[in-house]
Amino acid sequence: MNPQEIEKKSFEIITEIMQKEYPDIKIPQEQQSIVKRVIHTTADFEYLHTLCFCNDAVKRGKQALKKGISIVTDTQMVKSGINKKAVECLGSEVYCFMSDEYVAEQSKKQNTTRAFASMDKAAQMQKELIFAIGNAPTALIRLHELIQQNKIIPPALIIAVPVGFVNVVQSKELILSLDVPCIVAKGRKGGSNVAAAICNALLYEIIPNVL
Amino acid sequence: MNPQEIEKKSFEIITEIMQKEYPDIKIPQEQQSIVKRVIHTTADFEYLHTLCFCNDAVKRGKQALKKGISIVTDTQMVKSGINKKAVECLGSEVYCFMSDEYVAEQSKKQNTTRAFASMDKAAQMQKELIFAIGNAPTALIRLHELIQQNKIIPPALIIAVPVGFVNVVQSKELILSLDVPCIVAKGRKGGSNVAAAICNALLYEIIPNVL
Repeated sequence: MNPQEIEKKSFEIITEIMQKEYPDIKIPQEQQSIVKRVIHTTADFEYLHTLCFCNDAVKRGKQALKKGISIVTDTQMVKSGINKKAVECLGSEVYCFMSDEYVAEQSKKQNTTRAFASMDKAAQMQKELIFAIGNAPTALIRLHELIQQNKIIPPALIIAVPVGFVNVVQSKELILSLDVPCIVAKGRKGGSNVAAAICNALLYEIIPNVL
Repeated sequence: MNPQEIEKKSFEIITEIMQKEYPDIKIPQEQQSIVKRVIHTTADFEYLHTLCFCNDAVKRGKQALKKGISIVTDTQMVKSGINKKAVECLGSEVYCFMSDEYVAEQSKKQNTTRAFASMDKAAQMQKELIFAIGNAPTALIRLHELIQQNKIIPPALIIAVPVGFVNVVQSKELILSLDVPCIVAKGRKGGSNVAAAICNALLYEIIPNVL
């Protein structure tokens, strides 16, 4: 089997398991491809219970990508997991400022994390952006502050799926409290792979043949 | 809290949950840092049940890294997740051949996946290598063939943790059947993040201050 066939078969198996083992969970049509791609990436059906979509997240995210709005990630892993060809086709770009010298300096100076400082750097771009955060709760905490203080152009979409045990659950709740389109994995689970999978699911909805 | 403090706190929480909620699972001392780092990366305690260590995997993997043996990954995501500073300190390198032109050509010519062809490319290096496979069962299937047919220098360690629904479980069982040091996540779960976490756990055991 070639990769396309393997992927197609995988999605069939996922759909079958969802129907058989989770018949009571009804996922709205527009969220299906995202939820299934996250399960495809993790083999973890817990995301059926934890993925939340707020403020027209799917529609707004797709609209933004179609307009060529760029994506900011909090790890190089998220960046490398996003389909570059799809991003290029749309005239969009993927930025990760974690290795940026200015960000390293600022985080030292302010005694914060680089993820925190990298959100400030994104705010300085003064552009509408999509945020795909798969690792750092401090990125979400800073993003929440920047939005509340009107120090950033309101994001087109926040994908808030860090993983972990410290500040993770709380940082996601902060994002859910905002009036911003967001896709959030409630609880401890998530990760760079999950963040990239959500970006790709949105991209493939727009340009399916790029896969 | 700075990232080091957050990480330390996370590992304390993981250790506490393991003791309280899984008192019957005894992880050998040398495997602890790997198992905990995988849980740190996934927030998924199922790995307590599924991670297998065969043929002195931890000892052999650490010996290999100390000697500067290089790592071959099956995705750019695994490559970007591995701590570059640690790898450089040891005189090792991380290779991913998925975007290699020769690999793209060969996979087309032979109607295989690029992951399959990238294992052939690795075999052609004629060096002892560590393999960190977090995505492609076809990489493991080809690795198994190459080893059985003596067409590759026996790997120092195979990290076999692809995720998914097609051929994944079987490909991991193939690796477990070999007489080669391996760390395997049995079942469907795994991923690029898990593969990178296992590499990093080994690296940090050797040079803890690089974190």
